[in-house]
Amino acid sequence: MYYIGIDLGGTGAKAGIVTEEGTIIAKGSVPTKQLVGFEAIVEAMAKLALKVMEDASVSLDEIKCVGIGCPGSIDDKNGIVYYSNNLVMENAPICDEMKKYINKPIFIGNDANCAALGEFYNLDDDSVENFVAVTLGTGVGGGIILGKKLYTGFNGAGGEIGHINLCFGGEPCTCGRSGCWEAYASATALIRDTERAAKANPDSLLAKMVNENGGRATGKIPFDAAQAGDETGKKVVDAYISYVGEGIVDIINIFQPEVVAIGGGVCNQGDNLLVPLREYVAPRTYGAGLIPATKIIIASLGNDAGIIGAAFLGKE
Amino acid sequence: MYYIGIDLGGTGAKAGIVTEEGTIIAKGSVPTKQLVGFEAIVEAMAKLALKVMEDASVSLDEIKCVGIGCPGSIDDKNGIVYYSNNLVMENAPICDEMKKYINKPIFIGNDANCAALGEFYNLDDDSVENFVAVTLGTGVGGGIILGKKLYTGFNGAGGEIGHINLCFGGEPCTCGRSGCWEAYASATALIRDTERAAKANPDSLLAKMVNENGGRATGKIPFDAAQAGDETGKKVVDAYISYVGEGIVDIINIFQPEVVAIGGGVCNQGDNLLVPLREYVAPRTYGAGLIPATKIIIASLGNDAGIIGAAFLGKE
Repeated sequence: MYYIGIDLGGTGAKAGIVTEEGTIIAKGSVPTKQLVGFEAIVEAMAKLALKVMEDASVSLDEIKCVGIGCPGSIDDKNGIVYYSNNLVMENAPICDEMKKYINKPIFIGNDANCAALGEFYNLDDDSVENFVAVTLGTGVGGGIILGKKLYTGFNGAGGEIGHINLCFGGEPCTCGRSGCWEAYASATALIRDTERAAKANPDSLLAKMVNENGGRATGKIPFDAAQAGDETGKKVVDAYISYVGEGIVDIINIFQPEVVAIGGGVCNQGDNLLVPLREYVAPRTYGAGLIPATKIIIASLGNDAGIIGAAFLGKE
Repeated sequence: MYYIGIDLGGTGAKAGIVTEEGTIIAKGSVPTKQLVGFEAIVEAMAKLALKVMEDASVSLDEIKCVGIGCPGSIDDKNGIVYYSNNLVMENAPICDEMKKYINKPIFIGNDANCAALGEFYNLDDDSVENFVAVTLGTGVGGGIILGKKLYTGFNGAGGEIGHINLCFGGEPCTCGRSGCWEAYASATALIRDTERAAKANPDSLLAKMVNENGGRATGKIPFDAAQAGDETGKKVVDAYISYVGEGIVDIINIFQPEVVAIGGGVCNQGDNLLVPLREYVAPRTYGAGLIPATKIIIASLGNDAGIIGAAFLGKE
């Protein structure tokens, strides 16, 4: 049997046929930005899914279920998008609509949660029951897997781990609150802090690199500057690692999961990020040294995580 | 059938016979402070439990299981206390030892987690699946119930919700980290902040009340001063409510539980605490107004929660 996973974003949808083992055997995409109304978006997703099935020579009889990952607040029990800013949807019964085209069990989940579920199924250790994935991207997203199941709370909106406090009354956050982890640990925040540091230290290598990039920082610049021995770059990287680290300590103190996986573009830094991050986190967790410790790893699936996780929303 | 619940503290143990409905039909206590070694403590707890059974005229055949709530880091799967500072125990196989005296299934859990489980079973709403209890006491403890089961992580040490970040690099915490929620939202922190405010505002009513109490603050003083119209008292209370509130927003953003219950001595303030706390939390939660909202209530069981929760560790 196969699973259909659909990853719906603000501008388009991707779909894939996924095996029981989590391999994508065919995939495709369709733009959705110009479509008006959830019905039109669902129709486009359904047609894409049917086309990808055809590409993979898989019949409907061989499909176990369909899963849709979608940005926004999702009522996963009733298959409804409460609200999605990116998609201009409100109380949209996505699953019922999809069933008109593909008469199989249809599941829906938040896109970040789906990506987390995909990373969970990609772990090479079956004994892991509890797992938290964190994506350091434009924001800080993620998902929580407990007892091998995605945890989303009573209303489907749980797992907003980017929106826990890091710094009381601190930087404004996109969610309306201030001081959220996302406002310090996202790639967006790292870029902001790099630009501030460049401005405050105009003679630094960091400032030179920002200037050479047209006055705009990237998440890579502070790491490159630090590697080249620049003190300003080192300070930005150290602060960033402490911000990311504090949130991971919070996650460990709450969940004590076997594994925390971090993903997003910043993780291309590999050991430059992971080694100091592990050193920061280890002594700060509650009961450190007295109890078995959570492993911190870098997520490995990348963009396919959303398709695979969506596909596996209905996996037993 | 009945359950035996034992609440082990730093200076003594309490035991109760608990019905299926969560009523304690007999209870007793025994001092344990002078006892050396976990074997002696378990023996004292077992004798207490057997005596309380006798008081209740309940035979061993009528007992379903025994549960022990214990401070410290607990390996609940293997029935071992990893480490307890209060009890001077390390890797103590409590459950195996207890089974020598009472040949029934024996369960163990962290004492704060047991109290949370007791409060969960005391809710008058059976539809609640996900519940977080927070105790604002000497520290900030609590417990997480998900899918009607206590959640403790892979190593039994999860649920340390007092040790999530409130203020990056802020007040030192007993856990060794700085800026933890506990370091701002505990009764201890409220007393510290009241004494600081009294010192900084010697002409305030708050300062007068602290002086009249021998120069020592209590958690009640700032609320009393605020009620009497004292600006310094109001500021301390408002700040405290924002500290407690931020942590509750974190809990909601992560778990989206149906209910969060707060307990501890500060909650004797009732609506003076609860009303402004609800007002603080509501607009700051992620997706506020767009999704069904978590209820915030005051925990009602008090000291019996630990016995009832321990008893129900083995409830199906």
